[in-house]
Amino acid sequence: MRKKGVITLITDFGDESGYAGIMKGVILTINPNCQIIDITHQISPQGIEEAAFLLHNAYSYFPKYSIHLVVVDPGVGSERKPILVETDRYWFVGPDNGVFSFVFSMKGFNKVWEITNKNYFLPEVSSTFHARDIFAPIAAHLSLGVPAEKLGKELRRFVTLKDLEPRISAGMIKAKVIYIDHFGNLVCNVSQDLFTKVGAGKSFRIAVGGKTIQKLSLSYADAEDGEILALFGSSRWLEISLKDGNCQRALQVKKGAAVDVHFS
Amino acid sequence: MRKKGVITLITDFGDESGYAGIMKGVILTINPNCQIIDITHQISPQGIEEAAFLLHNAYSYFPKYSIHLVVVDPGVGSERKPILVETDRYWFVGPDNGVFSFVFSMKGFNKVWEITNKNYFLPEVSSTFHARDIFAPIAAHLSLGVPAEKLGKELRRFVTLKDLEPRISAGMIKAKVIYIDHFGNLVCNVSQDLFTKVGAGKSFRIAVGGKTIQKLSLSYADAEDGEILALFGSSRWLEISLKDGNCQRALQVKKGAAVDVHFS
Amino acid sequence: MRKKGVITLITDFGDESGYAGIMKGVILTINPNCQIIDITHQISPQGIEEAAFLLHNAYSYFPKYSIHLVVVDPGVGSERKPILVETDRYWFVGPDNGVFSFVFSMKGFNKVWEITNKNYFLPEVSSTFHARDIFAPIAAHLSLGVPAEKLGKELRRFVTLKDLEPRISAGMIKAKVIYIDHFGNLVCNVSQDLFTKVGAGKSFRIAVGGKTIQKLSLSYADAEDGEILALFGSSRWLEISLKDGNCQRALQVKKGAAVDVHFS
Repeated sequence: MRKKGVITLITDFGDESGYAGIMKGVILTINPNCQIIDITHQISPQGIEEAAFLLHNAYSYFPKYSIHLVVVDPGVGSERKPILVETDRYWFVGPDNGVFSFVFSMKGFNKVWEITNKNYFLPEVSSTFHARDIFAPIAAHLSLGVPAEKLGKELRRFVTLKDLEPRISAGMIKAKVIYIDHFGNLVCNVSQDLFTKVGAGKSFRIAVGGKTIQKLSLSYADAEDGEILALFGSSRWLEISLKDGNCQRALQVKKGAAVDVHFS
Repeated sequence: MRKKGVITLITDFGDESGYAGIMKGVILTINPNCQIIDITHQISPQGIEEAAFLLHNAYSYFPKYSIHLVVVDPGVGSERKPILVETDRYWFVGPDNGVFSFVFSMKGFNKVWEITNKNYFLPEVSSTFHARDIFAPIAAHLSLGVPAEKLGKELRRFVTLKDLEPRISAGMIKAKVIYIDHFGNLVCNVSQDLFTKVGAGKSFRIAVGGKTIQKLSLSYADAEDGEILALFGSSRWLEISLKDGNCQRALQVKKGAAVDVHFS
Repeated sequence: MRKKGVITLITDFGDESGYAGIMKGVILTINPNCQIIDITHQISPQGIEEAAFLLHNAYSYFPKYSIHLVVVDPGVGSERKPILVETDRYWFVGPDNGVFSFVFSMKGFNKVWEITNKNYFLPEVSSTFHARDIFAPIAAHLSLGVPAEKLGKELRRFVTLKDLEPRISAGMIKAKVIYIDHFGNLVCNVSQDLFTKVGAGKSFRIAVGGKTIQKLSLSYADAEDGEILALFGSSRWLEISLKDGNCQRALQVKKGAAVDVHFS
């Protein structure tokens, strides 16, 4: 591993509290040459599923051996374990609460380690801010080349989220809105692969927020002004959008809203 | 050009979606030594004009040969061209939709290049996220010293925004609010130079949101508590402010609101 | 001091205006090797007290000799002085308006310098953006090793905020909500040390927003669902939280709201 190291951050800390900045201070104190990249600190509070999706969309665009630090951690201070996930190309650090569900089924996934070695934590560990006291120092030491064997021990059972995948029944995908971006685009947990597989050779209609869509667009520009459109976005998830407008506001739907795809 | 390189980012992606983080991953994969600086990701969705102004205020404060990447791109996936703008001191990368209008009239402006060489894109180009697939890799290769000649071909006709400049008639400047900052200050498209030129030796009144202002202040502190004041801000645009308060909230105006300066 | 240098930023500029990005451009132009870390730009407009607290929570987690740049500066353009605060491990740069109140009583505090040497400012100094024109260049030169003696002269009297500390009377601490984080946690100006000292051997009740709390939890997880709880947070301030929810929204309180701790 390059001593320089890249550490990325996904948290639900927001940008107002300075919590993410404090994590960066801890990392730089341990590895002054580390490059720290914010993916987002705007995960909805306690939004484990949302963080899992964003991580899934982002991780593979970073340099080999980047360390992805994900802290959405409603169970901080309880018995949930701090973990380290090893894959062929990347490391992942965070709580064992399902936030790495997609990583476990990833090509190149190797192993999960429970983080146990207090010598690599901050000297004092609070009960509410493990991101500062455990996860940031562990990621920093890892970026310096400390091997996983020194940081903890292998963990055979770890938490995987249910309900990440949509339910599939005869001629239908029952899905949901996973997150909503700054443009108001509704991103759904329906991958292009799944859609193609289930719907091969069939016509379809997508029902969401009282609206029905019966065709796929290729880009946001490939629609009429004011039209609600469906397309496969840049991460190959089904996305519901309003041409030159905010689809969330137009349809008044929230994260978690039902998205039903009927094939016939 | 220094191999280290500085790339700045202005987008309308917001901070919640991770899109800007993904761009950074792409850049660092190509040039691990690049320094990436966020100017803002909070441009109003599709706010091309707003991005043009913010870029204008910011670009000149960065090191020579910085690369300014601006992605406000409602036409992504359509026929709008990706471009590279060359000036004596800086590079600019983004869509050909007018976002670089100020750059074209800048001292030191040289040339516009259409970005065409797919060898410098990501292997797969989506129809909705050219920031990741085209603009970020092009900026990264440019920061490594790849010459513009290799990235594309010269472009003779490019898009310039109309309506950036206020309308000037006998004794009057008809302007508008260009953007509104975090403090609620209303920034108007009236430069100090223009105001001085049109108004030389005359008295004036500024009408905005039902309010009239008849003097210029030198600083926010140079006003009474609760007073609506006008001054030339740090980028030499006319700015309407509320002493120790939020002017936007007080006047209930929005981006684009009319600002009329009458001279007599 | 390492030539590389770390400069942290705390401002009330928000993320939409590009002001913080411009400061970074100024810093990198002077010291291209500097590492710049955002702590937050989301301090409430003119929230000097809030910035003082966030700085207090964050500064000590950064590498030795980091320079903490804090710009919450309603008096910009007036007579308030730009200052540099020297301590054994850190430097602090910003306006003399009380934002460094905690630093003055910090172990290792040495000296305050008034920043006066215009040779280290930008060539043109505006009356509204000293962060760009004075504070950022001063911090950058400091990170290059320019000694404080060259930047200004010692200042013997400087501004300290009143009302940072809660009022203590017989059997009671009259405190307030200092800031509210992204999770809606209410952080109060009652340190664990103070609480322990005043309340030793007594029972207590905490009154805030019409709600009374009579026990301390150890972590967010150490409470019933939907319970309003009190704990000492990661920075050892008293914090009022709602288990798996947003306490601010539940109690409808704002920054500055009264928090009374009665002992008996």
